[in-house]
Amino acid sequence: MARAGGFPRRTRDFVGIAEAVGIGVLGATGYGGAELIRLLAGHPHARLRAASSRQSAGRSLDSQIPSLAGCGLILDEDPQDPQAWVDRGVDVIFSALPHGAFAARAGRFLEAGVKVIDLSGDFRLRDAAEYERRYHMPHPAPDLLESAVYGLTEWRGLHIDCAQLVANPGCYATAILMAVLPAVEARLWNGAPIVANALSGVSGAGRAPSLTTHFVECGSGAAPYRVGEEHAHLGEILQMVRSTELRRTSAGSSAANSSFIFNPHLVPMSRGILASIAIPLDRRQEPDAVRELYRRRYEECPFVRVLDADALPETRHVRGSNRCDIAVRVAADGTMLLVFAAIDNLVKGAAGQAIQNWNRMQGWPETTGLPLDGFGS
Amino acid sequence: MARAGGFPRRTRDFVGIAEAVGIGVLGATGYGGAELIRLLAGHPHARLRAASSRQSAGRSLDSQIPSLAGCGLILDEDPQDPQAWVDRGVDVIFSALPHGAFAARAGRFLEAGVKVIDLSGDFRLRDAAEYERRYHMPHPAPDLLESAVYGLTEWRGLHIDCAQLVANPGCYATAILMAVLPAVEARLWNGAPIVANALSGVSGAGRAPSLTTHFVECGSGAAPYRVGEEHAHLGEILQMVRSTELRRTSAGSSAANSSFIFNPHLVPMSRGILASIAIPLDRRQEPDAVRELYRRRYEECPFVRVLDADALPETRHVRGSNRCDIAVRVAADGTMLLVFAAIDNLVKGAAGQAIQNWNRMQGWPETTGLPLDGFGS
Amino acid sequence: MARAGGFPRRTRDFVGIAEAVGIGVLGATGYGGAELIRLLAGHPHARLRAASSRQSAGRSLDSQIPSLAGCGLILDEDPQDPQAWVDRGVDVIFSALPHGAFAARAGRFLEAGVKVIDLSGDFRLRDAAEYERRYHMPHPAPDLLESAVYGLTEWRGLHIDCAQLVANPGCYATAILMAVLPAVEARLWNGAPIVANALSGVSGAGRAPSLTTHFVECGSGAAPYRVGEEHAHLGEILQMVRSTELRRTSAGSSAANSSFIFNPHLVPMSRGILASIAIPLDRRQEPDAVRELYRRRYEECPFVRVLDADALPETRHVRGSNRCDIAVRVAADGTMLLVFAAIDNLVKGAAGQAIQNWNRMQGWPETTGLPLDGFGS
Amino acid sequence: MARAGGFPRRTRDFVGIAEAVGIGVLGATGYGGAELIRLLAGHPHARLRAASSRQSAGRSLDSQIPSLAGCGLILDEDPQDPQAWVDRGVDVIFSALPHGAFAARAGRFLEAGVKVIDLSGDFRLRDAAEYERRYHMPHPAPDLLESAVYGLTEWRGLHIDCAQLVANPGCYATAILMAVLPAVEARLWNGAPIVANALSGVSGAGRAPSLTTHFVECGSGAAPYRVGEEHAHLGEILQMVRSTELRRTSAGSSAANSSFIFNPHLVPMSRGILASIAIPLDRRQEPDAVRELYRRRYEECPFVRVLDADALPETRHVRGSNRCDIAVRVAADGTMLLVFAAIDNLVKGAAGQAIQNWNRMQGWPETTGLPLDGFGS
Repeated sequence: MARAGGFPRRTRDFVGIAEAVGIGVLGATGYGGAELIRLLAGHPHARLRAASSRQSAGRSLDSQIPSLAGCGLILDEDPQDPQAWVDRGVDVIFSALPHGAFAARAGRFLEAGVKVIDLSGDFRLRDAAEYERRYHMPHPAPDLLESAVYGLTEWRGLHIDCAQLVANPGCYATAILMAVLPAVEARLWNGAPIVANALSGVSGAGRAPSLTTHFVECGSGAAPYRVGEEHAHLGEILQMVRSTELRRTSAGSSAANSSFIFNPHLVPMSRGILASIAIPLDRRQEPDAVRELYRRRYEECPFVRVLDADALPETRHVRGSNRCDIAVRVAADGTMLLVFAAIDNLVKGAAGQAIQNWNRMQGWPETTGLPLDGFGS
Repeated sequence: MARAGGFPRRTRDFVGIAEAVGIGVLGATGYGGAELIRLLAGHPHARLRAASSRQSAGRSLDSQIPSLAGCGLILDEDPQDPQAWVDRGVDVIFSALPHGAFAARAGRFLEAGVKVIDLSGDFRLRDAAEYERRYHMPHPAPDLLESAVYGLTEWRGLHIDCAQLVANPGCYATAILMAVLPAVEARLWNGAPIVANALSGVSGAGRAPSLTTHFVECGSGAAPYRVGEEHAHLGEILQMVRSTELRRTSAGSSAANSSFIFNPHLVPMSRGILASIAIPLDRRQEPDAVRELYRRRYEECPFVRVLDADALPETRHVRGSNRCDIAVRVAADGTMLLVFAAIDNLVKGAAGQAIQNWNRMQGWPETTGLPLDGFGS
Repeated sequence: MARAGGFPRRTRDFVGIAEAVGIGVLGATGYGGAELIRLLAGHPHARLRAASSRQSAGRSLDSQIPSLAGCGLILDEDPQDPQAWVDRGVDVIFSALPHGAFAARAGRFLEAGVKVIDLSGDFRLRDAAEYERRYHMPHPAPDLLESAVYGLTEWRGLHIDCAQLVANPGCYATAILMAVLPAVEARLWNGAPIVANALSGVSGAGRAPSLTTHFVECGSGAAPYRVGEEHAHLGEILQMVRSTELRRTSAGSSAANSSFIFNPHLVPMSRGILASIAIPLDRRQEPDAVRELYRRRYEECPFVRVLDADALPETRHVRGSNRCDIAVRVAADGTMLLVFAAIDNLVKGAAGQAIQNWNRMQGWPETTGLPLDGFGS
Repeated sequence: MARAGGFPRRTRDFVGIAEAVGIGVLGATGYGGAELIRLLAGHPHARLRAASSRQSAGRSLDSQIPSLAGCGLILDEDPQDPQAWVDRGVDVIFSALPHGAFAARAGRFLEAGVKVIDLSGDFRLRDAAEYERRYHMPHPAPDLLESAVYGLTEWRGLHIDCAQLVANPGCYATAILMAVLPAVEARLWNGAPIVANALSGVSGAGRAPSLTTHFVECGSGAAPYRVGEEHAHLGEILQMVRSTELRRTSAGSSAANSSFIFNPHLVPMSRGILASIAIPLDRRQEPDAVRELYRRRYEECPFVRVLDADALPETRHVRGSNRCDIAVRVAADGTMLLVFAAIDNLVKGAAGQAIQNWNRMQGWPETTGLPLDGFGS
């Protein structure tokens, strides 16, 4: 389980560095937005210049998110135009607004020289028709799709380095793709349906009150929802699976015509995603060989931990961390690969990965200002 | 979602009936034992004559299980010999002891004319070698295996009716088999690996304190364990799958040589099992047709509810109930059947099904004294 | 801790009894309404004839409350007039609507000969001005206040026996009054402020979604609210404290001019109220003597359990039960009485006590159809 | 609610500072020890040189506390002698061992020039007889009691600055004293019993498995324990209350002869303490005046937030933070002060305050490396 290297962790990385970049956060009072602000407060180069809220403009941030004490920031109106924020020194914006709410304005920010990291689903799919199919609305800015980079850091890093517009992946998609892509890339998968079950904490459902997120309704039970092929994240999952496969072959993708079953479940925890995935194999495999393959694939990735043979990931172990913990098993006489992955949906599944992407866009070490340890309890 | 029939539920069934049967419960202070006593208190024919505890003999039951107020029962030593309990009028015993703890004595109780319902894994497998493989110990009473009836009520009812020794199924096995067997019986399955993920409440891990069940360790996260083909319940699952298949064909079982992947997970709830299962199909199927097949299979089964096309089971809805809620979906262009099943692990997954079996052994309606409604909240 | 008497509990009480009473429930899809229906299903004399919902009329009850499977009932519109329900055989109604929603119609139901048990705050206070002060609206039916009986069963039993209109107490008020009144009645209290802290489960906040009841907001923390003298339940608490004191003396109430501090807190559990109360004593007391006084006061009360000297009540022990568990301690050199009481807010704090009151109104044993045991887990 | 000052928080404090101090942690695998290591990893001057565990010596820290990924540290045997750790560069030790386990060795570490911060109860009481009364064992090192400084940072800061041995306060004591002492110091209290109710998260009960901390036993209910005057923390509470009072008067302490009622409760959350305290007042007070008094008392204290009149503290808001949030109300016609305080029991109630004390011992800003923001969710 050990990763090399003693004790030097995040806070040491930036001692002595003084570079500062002005940040704006849209949608600061949702769970993703608040987590961005919490993490950015520990980032050595981030200077939060502005934060907006559609419901709470004019109020102090800490009155809306009392855990963010002492920030002293007053929430802005949702900025329709970049100028006011540019004037206040905003160089980069993170949008934590829901899908459909920001994309139409993204172009204006980009034209004003502001880098954009969008945590919604709006810029994840390259194909506007696929977007409409998954999100049931026409895409608000189809001309930007080509330049947007899908921000699964460990898989798109070089593209992210020079991006102006990053589409931060969905939380489910992050956990599932981190678990599936090494096998796809290595052409272990036989193209028969992959079955991905995933468990999500309730913060994944957003902060707007609903019967679904009422403590009495979700606090003591487990519930599947939008199972099979219904969930919007399937679009970005399939897109990445197919493009990963195609990079390795001229023979066409087996994924192109195959299915991917994704069963999300809500369980009574605030944070976390646990993905449990079965991948039918092209040929018999030994577990140690596959584990080694995963380790090699991720050996340069500081936030990925491929666990030893006797360990399995738990959401508790990554709660509060930007890590993705992964375990690899082989079953069914060597013909089925089982991969388990755990992330914190608000960190690696949202705000943390957004900052990881921003670190790359700025040329800093990927780990800058990001927690490797979890809360623990 | 509606089942026929207005309001007449459990308490009406037995008005005017005076028949009484003396009951003994072994292992009364575990979660399964305490649930047995709670449910038996609402059973019109049950007279609890004795209850034992290995740790708390001589103390009152309500001092050990304070929710069972007013019972007034003093806990016995774990009875090695049936005579004392027979003398006190015990006609039937329910053993809620862990596996390996009671089986060696079971013969003596049966010879004394006492019916036995064993909630442990000891009498579930017909093959002593398979028992040893799954439970890592030689079987304590192999000669009884042939006469024991596997108590999955909806599938072994006629055998249970005349049984003296019932092996109550495991909680995971109950949820998974209720979901899988109709498809197996109807020969929809193509024999490729079935992938069954299941989520369990913490009471399934037993009442003995451990780091795993510590609130801080399991209370805010989800964790897989004994995944793939490691869990002991796989033995009874495969045994039932194969025997169900063989009943329908002389052509041999496709299960005989196929694999069954079972990934259990612990999630932060006290009660409940949710199984999410993918079954590769022999030929393309329409969801409505499969749902109708499931409904026909269970139409005489008062505790099974096959949900409408737009609904999915949740553990909260069956918490406290002896029901099994099931939903059927078809994915992957009609080639993969998805079945979701929810039970309360302590009721349909343990104490409730034990009483359901006892009802059949006595010739009473299966529903006698058992709750159809859940706690709700 | 033991209460006398072996095993005969609720289901035995009514063997052979055939008397049936038609029931209507208003507000059936809230937590209180659903709990009423769940408990009435186990009551030997109850025949549910009608249930209404303001939001879900025309839909099946089990589609709205899936734990209530098989009931088959279709929800009515909220009945403005009693006639339709009378025609369907409704003899008694339980209103689980919020305060202000039903009271104006109560007179019409009473005039039509329908008994009314109102679970809201509307008929609890005898004084319309005090109602307006606590609920911030004029009383909708002040002329009925005189005939309404406050349904704290153990303290108003004889009045309830012949009541037509019962005002079921608030959940906090029930726990606190059960704990305080024996000391008040025995004139142990010196009139200095009583300090009552209470913890409530989230179902007490109702089923309407809000940020307060969002799992992420309330699921991992404890929060006080409306502390000091702000909570509406203080009205009924003071009313009962004063009338209890006056019954015992002609010298006037010390409560009349004294204060009662009530600090409610929300904690992450679905059900339950735990009250922890400090009562300044008139003279030094021995704990055993006060415990004995409490036991004598409640010795005829089947749902009250005064715990032994070494035990303290826990909400888990009464979850699902109609019991009130009470512990008595003395501190501060004998000058401060500490009383701890636990109830299930939906049972003894709402639906269970409503049925207990109805049992008395009908002349049946108070325990008829009500659970003494809790869910346990 | 706002505290002055924009955004500059912890990570900014130490940019450019290179001073490093070697740290050793005893008892690293309990909840307090693990939290120390998590927080020290974010401290600019801390270099963790050694960590010990009595059960897991020789194993890697991250195998025992998987949330602490990448630390790479191997756990030592519990060091009986300071030399080995001194040789490895340990300048300061934090002991997170339970009471009685370390004190007898403390002198040896001090003599070796190692500063000691002890998180157990061993050095909190100045009087060895009082220690024996509270902890039911003779004090292991009574000669050190005089030199130990009680580490309630906001109240003993000047003494801590030059201390070699700091006794870190108990979690309950921290919350209660922070809430009570300003009123005591200002002589608002009339000497009649203070009633302090407190709710604790389960991590406060330690990591050793027990029935009390089993998820099924504590996960869905609230339970008082060791109420009245039984809890060991009362010793340090009374000691600080009395010494605070005496500092202000030569007239003797009213506390000397008065009582303090402390009712701790366990509620289903991992972290957090919420104290709800009623203090009888010497004379009528206006709430705004008392709030202003509290604000003035704490205006130099960066971790204390005295809330506005309409707000109340919640444990969720301080979860993960070293803050103490306090609200002040007045009830009972101005004669009763109600104070509510929330802390994270593992941070301000243990590891965070230990580091806050260490910061003072080293002459660094109190906030160095400590989180002001909470986890949020």
